[in-house]
Amino acid sequence: MNDEDQILQANEAFYRAFSARDMTAMDAVWAKRAPVACIHPGWGALVTRESVMTSWQGILSSQNAPNVTCRGPRAFVSGDAAFVICFEMVEGGYLIATNIFTREDGAWRMTHHQAGPTNDAPPEEKPAPAKTSKTIH
Amino acid sequence: MNDEDQILQANEAFYRAFSARDMTAMDAVWAKRAPVACIHPGWGALVTRESVMTSWQGILSSQNAPNVTCRGPRAFVSGDAAFVICFEMVEGGYLIATNIFTREDGAWRMTHHQAGPTNDAPPEEKPAPAKTSKTIH
Repeated sequence: MNDEDQILQANEAFYRAFSARDMTAMDAVWAKRAPVACIHPGWGALVTRESVMTSWQGILSSQNAPNVTCRGPRAFVSGDAAFVICFEMVEGGYLIATNIFTREDGAWRMTHHQAGPTNDAPPEEKPAPAKTSKTIH
Repeated sequence: MNDEDQILQANEAFYRAFSARDMTAMDAVWAKRAPVACIHPGWGALVTRESVMTSWQGILSSQNAPNVTCRGPRAFVSGDAAFVICFEMVEGGYLIATNIFTREDGAWRMTHHQAGPTNDAPPEEKPAPAKTSKTIH
């Protein structure tokens, strides 16, 4: 599996942990040694691993935790660093997210997540362009 | 100068180019070979260098371009990859941004920028906590 596929798989593991409310899996997604940070939608920045994990514990254990699924992820790789841009489908609308990964102990692990509003949508959700007729009468 | 200082300097060069409406300086900030992307506030993702630079040309040449200054930047470094989280003061309010950098030809160059709304503010803008009096009468 090439780097891009591995990174997209790590990105998918993040959203799977989120959907499953699985704190153990969420913890495993994040880097252990590289510095980590997180900006939840509308929040300020959490800048220690402890504060990032505490935030996820709160979110994943909340009865109001939204269902989030990842759409249209794209990976950008440069050496041992990478980021993924993707849409997050949340309650029928979309956010857009940047997820940063680093290679640690041979695995791609998340070092940062920022999600925020977007007026865009994944390609598969956009209405198809109107067909133009080129028939000649 | 250590990596963190160099990265913060590269981050500052981005905001200086933005404020000065200097497209040549803006172009110099961004990576030449590593893949780049950009998510302007509320936009979808621009995922080629050409589309990112075209967007900056549009923004920097617009009469409505906002004045943006960087506040409270913090750098997170891991090998040849790094990101900065900072506030952007825009017309009296704040956005929060993630800027990703990679080491290219010995210099730190930007590979991604995402900015979005926040309910937080830089530490220096927050009201000081009320002083508690511990004098004993």
